[in-house]
Amino acid sequence: MQIFKYVGLSLLASSLLLGASDLSNKATKAGLKAIPADETVLSKLIDPNKTISAEKVELGKKLYFEPRLSKSGIISCNTCHNLGMGGVDGVAAAVGHKWTANPHHLNSPTVYNAVFFAAQFWDGRSPHLEDQAQGPMQAGPEMAAPKSLVEERVNSMPAYVAEFKKAYGNDVKIDFETITSTIGIFERTLVTPSRFDDFLNGQKDALTDAEKEGLNTFIDKGCTTCHSGIALGGSMQPFGITAKYKHENVGDFKGDKNKMVKAPTLRNITETAPYYHNGAIWDLADAVKEMGRIQLGLALTDDEVAKIVTFLGALEGRKPEIAYPQLPKSTATTPKPDFN
Amino acid sequence: MQIFKYVGLSLLASSLLLGASDLSNKATKAGLKAIPADETVLSKLIDPNKTISAEKVELGKKLYFEPRLSKSGIISCNTCHNLGMGGVDGVAAAVGHKWTANPHHLNSPTVYNAVFFAAQFWDGRSPHLEDQAQGPMQAGPEMAAPKSLVEERVNSMPAYVAEFKKAYGNDVKIDFETITSTIGIFERTLVTPSRFDDFLNGQKDALTDAEKEGLNTFIDKGCTTCHSGIALGGSMQPFGITAKYKHENVGDFKGDKNKMVKAPTLRNITETAPYYHNGAIWDLADAVKEMGRIQLGLALTDDEVAKIVTFLGALEGRKPEIAYPQLPKSTATTPKPDFN
Repeated sequence: MQIFKYVGLSLLASSLLLGASDLSNKATKAGLKAIPADETVLSKLIDPNKTISAEKVELGKKLYFEPRLSKSGIISCNTCHNLGMGGVDGVAAAVGHKWTANPHHLNSPTVYNAVFFAAQFWDGRSPHLEDQAQGPMQAGPEMAAPKSLVEERVNSMPAYVAEFKKAYGNDVKIDFETITSTIGIFERTLVTPSRFDDFLNGQKDALTDAEKEGLNTFIDKGCTTCHSGIALGGSMQPFGITAKYKHENVGDFKGDKNKMVKAPTLRNITETAPYYHNGAIWDLADAVKEMGRIQLGLALTDDEVAKIVTFLGALEGRKPEIAYPQLPKSTATTPKPDFN
Repeated sequence: MQIFKYVGLSLLASSLLLGASDLSNKATKAGLKAIPADETVLSKLIDPNKTISAEKVELGKKLYFEPRLSKSGIISCNTCHNLGMGGVDGVAAAVGHKWTANPHHLNSPTVYNAVFFAAQFWDGRSPHLEDQAQGPMQAGPEMAAPKSLVEERVNSMPAYVAEFKKAYGNDVKIDFETITSTIGIFERTLVTPSRFDDFLNGQKDALTDAEKEGLNTFIDKGCTTCHSGIALGGSMQPFGITAKYKHENVGDFKGDKNKMVKAPTLRNITETAPYYHNGAIWDLADAVKEMGRIQLGLALTDDEVAKIVTFLGALEGRKPEIAYPQLPKSTATTPKPDFN
């Protein structure tokens, strides 16, 4: 224990010696990236295929908040990825149709900044948001809606049909793929720049001294090995490298076929408890400490953990303003809610 | 049947003869009232005790969208009274905690314009919105949260505590009554002026000829007996006066101790299917026809029903713009979600 105290002190010293631009350079060299402040650059990043338009985003937002895309008619994307709660539901394992918890005890990941992930879902099986949106809508314990039901519901409401035509042209086929990819397009816009980005983008005083200190510790301890890039995470990584996760027995998820687990983004992490793929850890300091132990083989001191947690607070982002949408009304042909 | 046709024709003639101001006067005499266009007048109506302030409304909005006021942490007021869906959930009987349907098979009434109701709940047991908000939060099949849990959750989040202090002063006691009455204060603002109001407020062309015709039929047939006032409903009325409701056996609700049932508001009625206290009728025309039969002893013709339905469409209101709120983050002391 004693030795870590000294390491802690020496880190404190080193980061105080580091100027803001040196620390910013160090962060960049460690693979950390800012959300670009330049709108054009950001736009190319989140929308490389130029699919975004104001009409599609507005329509996608409605669909994101649309509970009638679920079999019951009362669960929307926003139920588990609540845009007012850091993009999550704040429960350990997602609970959906028929009050069923996720059968693998998987925690709902945040939708904020998910556009920056290399892969979607904890097992990384989905390449992008448009594809990802197809999953929960159909999954039995989530929204439980067959493709045909989703298509029938949307097509039964003239106001939706009109909006799809406005967004895609009169020949649009309003099928499951178009519906879900429109949601994905909306989700691409859910980006939350933070003071950390301001700092990397050159605003030297955007972080407090304590946060700079924490960032330095974060880098020196090797957290950036997995939590790098714009998302500070979002890519598939080996899990439990140096020790077995202490809550391994909560749920049955053991990673993808290569035993890899997606590293969650650390953006807004202070708002998205509980943590880990199985939501088994509620306390952020506890989560950081466990990461050190099982991923880096480090017994992080309480002081080091506290510094890192202080830095993580600077990743709380500015959320896009979202006008709560008025949804089209059901019609005589809209398939009825089904709770079974 | 033949005789009703002639009545229909004579009504058509009479309303075409009536000028817009005559029809407006006729509506007023029949007890229909506009949402006042004058902000000061409206403000006195919705806020007689001057409890509304910008801070309380903003806080009340957060609490309205706050799923952590439910035992599970995933059901908010907005789940069943969805502000994007006419203030309702669009299902026959509300489904809440543990996927439990309302045990009396009661349909969720709209929150929009509920400030104008003489009584809250289908049995009218609650005098106002501040009181009403206490019910669903505690009800086992709804949000299922004991008072103490609601209080602990809110008080565990410093951002909420700060907002309560800002709204009520530093000495505020953040108890269940204050929390629920703050929600009620927000709900007082959920007023939706429509083209019907514009018409009554003097804008003669705010209604189409067909809608004026429908309004005339609505009055002449006696619908205003129960559906009057600003809410076009919202007061306790005898139910099944001239015949037995055809879906009487759906659920066990037979009215309050005097067998009275609250007449629902007709504002936004085109957006709030299914209808009746037990949500047993999905089609608005069917609902109108049944009303004629069981409340007025009238066999309304399809033509008359269609006219009335056309008028009801003019009651679709302009919804207040609602910025989706960012909710405070949970802390270490926030009681965890409980799905049991």
